[in-house]
Amino acid sequence: MEHTTEKLVNTILESYKSYDLTSRIDEGNMLNKEIIIEILEKIRKILFPGFFDSSKVRSEYIKYIIGEQLEFVQYNLNKQISKALGSGDDSCSGCSKSRTSENAEEITYKFLESIPKIREYLYTDVQAAYDGDPAAYNTDEIIFSYPGVFAVTVYRIAHELHLLGVPMIPRIMTEHAHSITGIDIHPGADIGKYFFIDHGTGIVIGETTKIGDYVKIYQGVTLGALSTRQGQQLKGVKRHPTIEDNVTIYSGTTILGGDTVIGKGATIGGNAFIVNSVSAGIKVSVKNPELQFIGGNHEE
Amino acid sequence: MEHTTEKLVNTILESYKSYDLTSRIDEGNMLNKEIIIEILEKIRKILFPGFFDSSKVRSEYIKYIIGEQLEFVQYNLNKQISKALGSGDDSCSGCSKSRTSENAEEITYKFLESIPKIREYLYTDVQAAYDGDPAAYNTDEIIFSYPGVFAVTVYRIAHELHLLGVPMIPRIMTEHAHSITGIDIHPGADIGKYFFIDHGTGIVIGETTKIGDYVKIYQGVTLGALSTRQGQQLKGVKRHPTIEDNVTIYSGTTILGGDTVIGKGATIGGNAFIVNSVSAGIKVSVKNPELQFIGGNHEE
Amino acid sequence: MEHTTEKLVNTILESYKSYDLTSRIDEGNMLNKEIIIEILEKIRKILFPGFFDSSKVRSEYIKYIIGEQLEFVQYNLNKQISKALGSGDDSCSGCSKSRTSENAEEITYKFLESIPKIREYLYTDVQAAYDGDPAAYNTDEIIFSYPGVFAVTVYRIAHELHLLGVPMIPRIMTEHAHSITGIDIHPGADIGKYFFIDHGTGIVIGETTKIGDYVKIYQGVTLGALSTRQGQQLKGVKRHPTIEDNVTIYSGTTILGGDTVIGKGATIGGNAFIVNSVSAGIKVSVKNPELQFIGGNHEE
Amino acid sequence: MEHTTEKLVNTILESYKSYDLTSRIDEGNMLNKEIIIEILEKIRKILFPGFFDSSKVRSEYIKYIIGEQLEFVQYNLNKQISKALGSGDDSCSGCSKSRTSENAEEITYKFLESIPKIREYLYTDVQAAYDGDPAAYNTDEIIFSYPGVFAVTVYRIAHELHLLGVPMIPRIMTEHAHSITGIDIHPGADIGKYFFIDHGTGIVIGETTKIGDYVKIYQGVTLGALSTRQGQQLKGVKRHPTIEDNVTIYSGTTILGGDTVIGKGATIGGNAFIVNSVSAGIKVSVKNPELQFIGGNHEE
Amino acid sequence: MEHTTEKLVNTILESYKSYDLTSRIDEGNMLNKEIIIEILEKIRKILFPGFFDSSKVRSEYIKYIIGEQLEFVQYNLNKQISKALGSGDDSCSGCSKSRTSENAEEITYKFLESIPKIREYLYTDVQAAYDGDPAAYNTDEIIFSYPGVFAVTVYRIAHELHLLGVPMIPRIMTEHAHSITGIDIHPGADIGKYFFIDHGTGIVIGETTKIGDYVKIYQGVTLGALSTRQGQQLKGVKRHPTIEDNVTIYSGTTILGGDTVIGKGATIGGNAFIVNSVSAGIKVSVKNPELQFIGGNHEE
Amino acid sequence: MEHTTEKLVNTILESYKSYDLTSRIDEGNMLNKEIIIEILEKIRKILFPGFFDSSKVRSEYIKYIIGEQLEFVQYNLNKQISKALGSGDDSCSGCSKSRTSENAEEITYKFLESIPKIREYLYTDVQAAYDGDPAAYNTDEIIFSYPGVFAVTVYRIAHELHLLGVPMIPRIMTEHAHSITGIDIHPGADIGKYFFIDHGTGIVIGETTKIGDYVKIYQGVTLGALSTRQGQQLKGVKRHPTIEDNVTIYSGTTILGGDTVIGKGATIGGNAFIVNSVSAGIKVSVKNPELQFIGGNHEE
Repeated sequence: MEHTTEKLVNTILESYKSYDLTSRIDEGNMLNKEIIIEILEKIRKILFPGFFDSSKVRSEYIKYIIGEQLEFVQYNLNKQISKALGSGDDSCSGCSKSRTSENAEEITYKFLESIPKIREYLYTDVQAAYDGDPAAYNTDEIIFSYPGVFAVTVYRIAHELHLLGVPMIPRIMTEHAHSITGIDIHPGADIGKYFFIDHGTGIVIGETTKIGDYVKIYQGVTLGALSTRQGQQLKGVKRHPTIEDNVTIYSGTTILGGDTVIGKGATIGGNAFIVNSVSAGIKVSVKNPELQFIGGNHEE
Repeated sequence: MEHTTEKLVNTILESYKSYDLTSRIDEGNMLNKEIIIEILEKIRKILFPGFFDSSKVRSEYIKYIIGEQLEFVQYNLNKQISKALGSGDDSCSGCSKSRTSENAEEITYKFLESIPKIREYLYTDVQAAYDGDPAAYNTDEIIFSYPGVFAVTVYRIAHELHLLGVPMIPRIMTEHAHSITGIDIHPGADIGKYFFIDHGTGIVIGETTKIGDYVKIYQGVTLGALSTRQGQQLKGVKRHPTIEDNVTIYSGTTILGGDTVIGKGATIGGNAFIVNSVSAGIKVSVKNPELQFIGGNHEE
Repeated sequence: MEHTTEKLVNTILESYKSYDLTSRIDEGNMLNKEIIIEILEKIRKILFPGFFDSSKVRSEYIKYIIGEQLEFVQYNLNKQISKALGSGDDSCSGCSKSRTSENAEEITYKFLESIPKIREYLYTDVQAAYDGDPAAYNTDEIIFSYPGVFAVTVYRIAHELHLLGVPMIPRIMTEHAHSITGIDIHPGADIGKYFFIDHGTGIVIGETTKIGDYVKIYQGVTLGALSTRQGQQLKGVKRHPTIEDNVTIYSGTTILGGDTVIGKGATIGGNAFIVNSVSAGIKVSVKNPELQFIGGNHEE
Repeated sequence: MEHTTEKLVNTILESYKSYDLTSRIDEGNMLNKEIIIEILEKIRKILFPGFFDSSKVRSEYIKYIIGEQLEFVQYNLNKQISKALGSGDDSCSGCSKSRTSENAEEITYKFLESIPKIREYLYTDVQAAYDGDPAAYNTDEIIFSYPGVFAVTVYRIAHELHLLGVPMIPRIMTEHAHSITGIDIHPGADIGKYFFIDHGTGIVIGETTKIGDYVKIYQGVTLGALSTRQGQQLKGVKRHPTIEDNVTIYSGTTILGGDTVIGKGATIGGNAFIVNSVSAGIKVSVKNPELQFIGGNHEE
Repeated sequence: MEHTTEKLVNTILESYKSYDLTSRIDEGNMLNKEIIIEILEKIRKILFPGFFDSSKVRSEYIKYIIGEQLEFVQYNLNKQISKALGSGDDSCSGCSKSRTSENAEEITYKFLESIPKIREYLYTDVQAAYDGDPAAYNTDEIIFSYPGVFAVTVYRIAHELHLLGVPMIPRIMTEHAHSITGIDIHPGADIGKYFFIDHGTGIVIGETTKIGDYVKIYQGVTLGALSTRQGQQLKGVKRHPTIEDNVTIYSGTTILGGDTVIGKGATIGGNAFIVNSVSAGIKVSVKNPELQFIGGNHEE
Repeated sequence: MEHTTEKLVNTILESYKSYDLTSRIDEGNMLNKEIIIEILEKIRKILFPGFFDSSKVRSEYIKYIIGEQLEFVQYNLNKQISKALGSGDDSCSGCSKSRTSENAEEITYKFLESIPKIREYLYTDVQAAYDGDPAAYNTDEIIFSYPGVFAVTVYRIAHELHLLGVPMIPRIMTEHAHSITGIDIHPGADIGKYFFIDHGTGIVIGETTKIGDYVKIYQGVTLGALSTRQGQQLKGVKRHPTIEDNVTIYSGTTILGGDTVIGKGATIGGNAFIVNSVSAGIKVSVKNPELQFIGGNHEE
């Protein structure tokens, strides 16, 4: 039996040599996902004081509570950014270790400075949700329990880090929101104010998407790229659509391509597959289901 | 450096004044999401004794186990309902604090009385899942691991609370199930017996949807409202479709509108976008994909 | 008040008799979902050493780390398989208890032997993801944070157990991945190398699906069966499509039926609903959205 | 380095063979200390309802709360007793496995029946503490925070198990109390009503000690055996003193020997070393410190 | 079997009526021991910044860290004090509920104001430990790991609360330290600066003890009261000794009585039993062990 | 109110300046007590395989289990030793940072090499406990639940680290055992084989104590130094007694002084205060309690 165990172990060890891409033996730690999620939660508490804290946030202590939360965010974000800058960044192969950690500190600080701006945007998103959803009880309920607002909050945080050139961490953040909500917004997307996602499961918003103000998007909508087998060659190229102000996109619609523009105020019906631009103000839909008896033996 | 920290803190504090909608400083606690989820878990243990308990449920102690779980549910649900009734309920602005907590107690009690009824419905849902899924191993597997059954269980609990006029809590419950399963059923929806959801990710069932008995729905189906920019004015109006008995709806289909009725026994093919009624017994589908070479440069 | 409590308890106890399908009083434990997830996590650490470990995996200890993780997996998987074999397996009604636990041990061992093979497949999956996604930073990011890779990892583990005839556990594993990622791959599906799922939310891949090498699938794609009301009679019959090598399927497309074959190198556009075969090399799409003004009063 | 690790591991493995007394490789689990402590805590909640529960114990649910706690205690105590009976019990070498588990069930039941009797004794102990300590605020404080009451509670529980012939578990219980309070009462000791221990650190009460009613003992008191190098030959012999009713023993006193009797109503001063009997009613003390200049250079 | 369980439950329920002193059914919660210990830990972090924090305390954030910790202490201490004032306080039977909570707030505030004073005293205690213990590595080690310093820290905190008239909480605090260290200092004791306890296990310092500056006490020392059977009548009377400045008391010594005074600079040898005063400057010891052959059969 | 909070915070901040000895603001972390205790627990599992592990230790995996535990110990002990060497070590003021961490690695390795020797000693200690205690059920019980064996195990580990020149960590280890058991053995003490501590609470064994083989010590025994006010000047001097082979010391006895030798085979009665040597083979005791009526009004 002991012999058997030894054989199992050895076979596995050998496979680490054959497929070394998938092992990181003797390399430093990857980023810490748990800490990154904790950072997110702390920032969310700073953004919406009193909503997610475990006890009442009292005004005579608010200053200290915020300061202490900033301390946690500043310390840990700085550490994670340092790691991220040091791992796999080809463009920075010449950086000395110390320059990297200087950068991390500066980036962290700039991020913290952007918190009021993030709050400003989120304020408009919450407004849009309340205006757009008859089922909403009040704005507190929206902040407290709407998955769309959660996903957009995480996106807005991750987007600021993305703008500051932080690799990997923003994506880990939005993948966290993706896992919780089924809404996958790439941190690189550029999204305006008063953005409302209803229900949201299955939404994909690609890296080079541009979205204006007052846009409303339903579950299952894809703002994607046309597929390619030469993925890495397209890095950085605009591959995802542009959605102008006041557009509404119904559930299940797919809009693809970097040149595809949905013009101001357009409304796109559900389940559409769109690879060309739509002019401003137009309301389009797939032609209403052409009813037909579906043949075949698929039922009894 | 200390000065810098102070500046950061102050800028954030100021932003609380500008965008006060998004802060609850000095206000009492919101509802406790963790406790509400724990309540759900306890009710699920009462509904399906022996499935989710950490050890064998023995008949000589079953009475005490149920009693003790009821105690937890009764105590905590009562407290959460009291909070919910007191927060933002415009229609109850005249209520004295004490009347609110009387109400909470009565509502809690009525809810507990409805547990056997919930079990009766869930029994039919499990039957429907077993009959409808060739991949099902046995009914135990269905209860133990099917996301559809989880989502419907949570919905049936939340629906009873919704009927008793409890605000916010039912929605927090169904959003929890939404996050776990990708299935978003509004607590207000009215759903008959023998309801089966297969796979389920991306399903949305709106607040005023009405669903009959023996209905079967696949992943990605939306039973939604037509969008509007004047959301809050439509509060309470029937905005979502009616699905009659024995209807099957294939994956990815969107059905919208309060006047849209899918008649008894109809079958709706996948990926359809439907905003008009479909007669009973009819089997409809989008016309089979009209094949065409897709143009463009999206693939080398 | 005490009387009231007693009445509540008794009504619930009675409902256990009426709907006994949904109770397991006095029966042994079900499988332990938490342990099964822990087993998955340990296997994932063995598959990708250094990625998910809490500290650096050093080569001078790697042997012991793997051995210790194997010990955990071997011990607990063995126990869970024993339980699974003993519960509700009609085909094994003649088995003595001891034969069952012999089987469990042998199955566990064979599973552990397949770990290097699983690694080999996953290596190709990670390659495919890197080649197919311009937004990917490096392969580390893919392993560390892509939901598609997570879902495929869990599927590849569950599939091996499925091939060894283990009931229920593989499904619990893939339902776990389903809950985290929104990607629902049945453990029975047969999937080739270099498989890439992008974004992934809403994907369903049915039990008897067959997928070749170098296949790429986007979010919201269903590879399903045509629905039926006589589910259990179709147990084991091929009900899901065959996808040959080098096929790409865009988001939101539904492909149904056991006889449906998507030929080598075909590309299927998004939002299609396909119930017939598509020849090799063909690129098909739903005819581009036939624009039309959508009627009705849904948007004033 | 890998070689080094291997050498370290092997040297340790070899030492397991040389000193096998200290290893239990391939043997079943020892008793579970954590579970035994949890059992203790549950029994303490049953003994003092409302003192150690996390929320108010309401009379309308008390029955269910007690029943559920009994279920935990009955199930787990039974399991631990089964293990204890099966491990190293020489006197039971002829027992079949199944007889052991029958015994365990019967013993557990008899123990549960003794709970009211334990409560009766503890009631008198609490009274004695209140009467004897001017610093006591009220009886609630005594139950809630006096280490003496904690140690005596654990002893009274362990003693009942000892009387029922359970090996090892009672000792694990009293060693737990010993660790928390510094009070070491052997479960075999026989202690009357109205027993009060003040402060308590350092108290040792040996296995064959007999203590009457209304006895009061201070910190640092030893009721011990005279030492011996042939320990195991004295197993079962009365080796510890007898303390009759109404005796008070001041701090730091050592009383040794199985024939030593402290008569009714005697008072023993502090720091005494007593190996002979003391008659009833006598108040004795070490002769008051004969003052002298202590020589030596220990304090310059 | 079900019948048996019912019988067990009922017997226990009946015993709650017979011995009601030991039950708190339907009464509000007792104080929360876990929270009180957490409060202690937070105060300890405020008293010794950087010693017990999980990460480096940086000067640019120190203000916020202290503020946030104060918030926790202020909020929770206030709540616990309110409860303590409301439970069993005979002298306050006429207090309205609201007056009680006003008192609690004021008391809490006054306690927080005393933190710098507590630090001042502890500073001298740490100095005394360093000067008195050749085995001390440095003052950091003393603060970090000496049980005597831990016990004195807790005492100094509890003593301030005692002076402010808070019932029960100070005792719960010192009993916590007692359990950890074996050192039992009553919160009512009055202890000067530069106080050093070495080793400490078994030390008891009673409620009305008075200790001067530069006093050094070893393990096993009791500063106690003469025992009494009419405990509660002596409430408030000085029953414990007075130890003047610069006194050293060796291990195991017992000093009893409210009139007993150990004069300035006296040294008391170990294992003494003292019930009369000792003059200043005197060095006393029990007469050196008068050697004798100990008779009896205790050693072969 | 906000003003008040600010004032409180500022007063505390100021006190950090006045009493800076007691703050470590802006300094690196102290040692991590939790990790050190975890290291201890892992070593204890290596020393006694199968006793403290949560599941059966199977021989076919034992090698990996030990290896993995070593990995944890080696990694973390190394880190803690590095910190300890770097903090406050005067004798190493010239060390470069990197030399320190080289030292740490070497020390850690030497410590790991000493594990078999520690096992050899503990084997004899367990034997001595079994031979000396008639109340012992078997050797398993002794290892599993005797506080004396726990304290000696921790001492033997700490002593090896002490011999290797590691500062602070050994003391933190023995203070942990002190807190659990009330037994305070300084890591510097030199203790032979077959050492048995019974009950143990209150035992103190000083830094320069030397103890031979087959020594047996009871609760409350102090092997201490004569006190001094010039503590730090005596650093390193032999200040504690020498106990030769086969000595027994009864409970409560205090033996002081670096020149005090208790000769081979001597027996020291309880409650003695000894500052001079005792010859080999002699059995001494305090003269039996000279009975007298104790005066005073302490007992009416």
